[in-house]
Order: sequence, then structure tokens, then C-alpha cells
Amino acid sequence: MLLLRLLALGATVSATVVMVTSHDSAQVFNLKFEAKYTNSPTFMYFVLMNAIASGYTLILLFFPSKSSWGHLILVSDFIITLLLDSSISACLAIGLVGKNGNSHAGWLPICGQVPKFCEHVGGALIAGFVAAVAYFLMFLYSLHNVMNLFTSNT
Amino acid sequence: MLLLRLLALGATVSATVVMVTSHDSAQVFNLKFEAKYTNSPTFMYFVLMNAIASGYTLILLFFPSKSSWGHLILVSDFIITLLLDSSISACLAIGLVGKNGNSHAGWLPICGQVPKFCEHVGGALIAGFVAAVAYFLMFLYSLHNVMNLFTSNT
Repeated sequence: MLLLRLLALGATVSATVVMVTSHDSAQVFNLKFEAKYTNSPTFMYFVLMNAIASGYTLILLFFPSKSSWGHLILVSDFIITLLLDSSISACLAIGLVGKNGNSHAGWLPICGQVPKFCEHVGGALIAGFVAAVAYFLMFLYSLHNVMNLFTSNT
Repeated sequence: MLLLRLLALGATVSATVVMVTSHDSAQVFNLKFEAKYTNSPTFMYFVLMNAIASGYTLILLFFPSKSSWGHLILVSDFIITLLLDSSISACLAIGLVGKNGNSHAGWLPICGQVPKFCEHVGGALIAGFVAAVAYFLMFLYSLHNVMNLFTSNT
């Protein structure tokens, strides 16, 4: 459990850092084009959610794991899992458009122009995915504990 | 609880139907442009997830709510909640690009050309959001029940 929390913390922190440091610029027809995470509200949402999850996990690490707070932690874990899940899905959707474009909507892929940016975003997505899986497992484990206690008492 | 399930069923079914029936075409510079949900993998993912959630909810309605299956249902509810949450986030991200465009990436908004399509997608997103909230509340309620039983026994 502690191991999963540490993994989640590492993953969310690296997702945040990698996404924030991702920027690249390209010259297209003498027009300077700079790619940053602040260009897309979705990427900003991703950074915010991963930062929140990092802070939350960090606080929990120094928190006495008393059973009286167990319920609150279970619910807040659930909410953090949902938020991470949501942010990574949104980012993945935008990332796919950035990589493959969408010919129907006339949106061109941008990874050819700003490969470094795309690599960073890809890295952040992988880290975010690891964090989401860690939270998913953590939640299932907590749930399993709560249920086992419940069944063993009846 | 049954009310929430029915609400979730209605919402996922309408999200699926509204999204599937959304298409519009426009003539831009003599070039016919047709907008359909199959144009974007994200929208197809949204339809698939909402269809799965509809089927799942429908099955549960005819399922005897015995406590021996309660744990399995709690876990599967959790997974369905995550999937719905993920699909709606991804769709919202794409929908925002469709509505506002992204000047940094050179992606133009498309809602001006295909307003009917955008209205449908917006409607599907609202229905999907209702479904996600219904599932969220349902899950918290189930969790609350499990925990209360647990605390009353200790």
C-alpha cells in the first residue's frame, strides 16, 4: 500500500514536471511557432490534476493511517482516481489529434513540427497512466480491505 | 438507488442515441464536408462506453440484488464509473477544440460549418455527464452502505 502510494506520488510528480517543461518551437514559413502546455486548456487541466494528486498523496504519506479517517480517505481516493482518469483521457484524446490530426475536421498533425514537445507530452501521458493505474489498484485494495472486514464480522 | 439506476440507464441510452444520430454536412468551397461521430475515434469511444454502460445497467435492473453479488457489483460499478468519466472527459476535450479551435496548433473551430452536429454532440455530452454523475452518486451510496454495515458491526 505504501509502495503503491510512493509509486503514485512519483508518477504524478513526474507527469506534472514533464508536462510543464514540455515546449518546443518551430519555424514554419518564417512564422515562429511555439508549442507549450499552456496552449491547450486540456494540458493545463492535466497539470493541475496531477499537481493536486501529488499534493494529496504527499499529505497522506505523513498522515497517521488511523481507521477513523479510513472512510474519508477511501472517498477522497475515489475522487482523486476519477480526476486522474479524467485528465489522462482528455489529454490522450488531444494528444492523438496532435499526432494523427483529423482529416475530417481539417486539423493537421503537429508532431512533425514540434517533435520534442510531442515526446514530452507522450512521456507525461505514460507517467500519468502509471499514476492512474496505481490509484486504481490502491482503491481496489482499500475496497477489498473494507469489504473483508465487513464480511468477517457478519 | 433504483431511481438512480433508471436515471443512469436513461442518460447513457440517450447519450448513445444522440451521439450516433449526430451528423451534418456543409458545403465549403464546393467541397462537401460531412461531420459524423465516426470521424473521430474519441466519439466512437464515447458511444462504445455509453453502450456498454447502458447494457450493464439494463442487466443489473433484472438482477436479484443479493448481497452475495454485492461486492462484485460494487467493483464493476467502480469500473463503469471510471469508463464513463474517461469517455466524457475525452469527448469534452475534443468538443472544446471543435467549438473554439486551437490557434496555436492551427486547428480551426468547425461548429460554424456544422451547427447541427455540434448541437448533437453537446446534447450527448450533457446526457453523458448526467450518467456520470448518477454513477458517481450510486457508487458513493453503495460505498456508504458497505461502510455503515462495517462500522455498525465493530
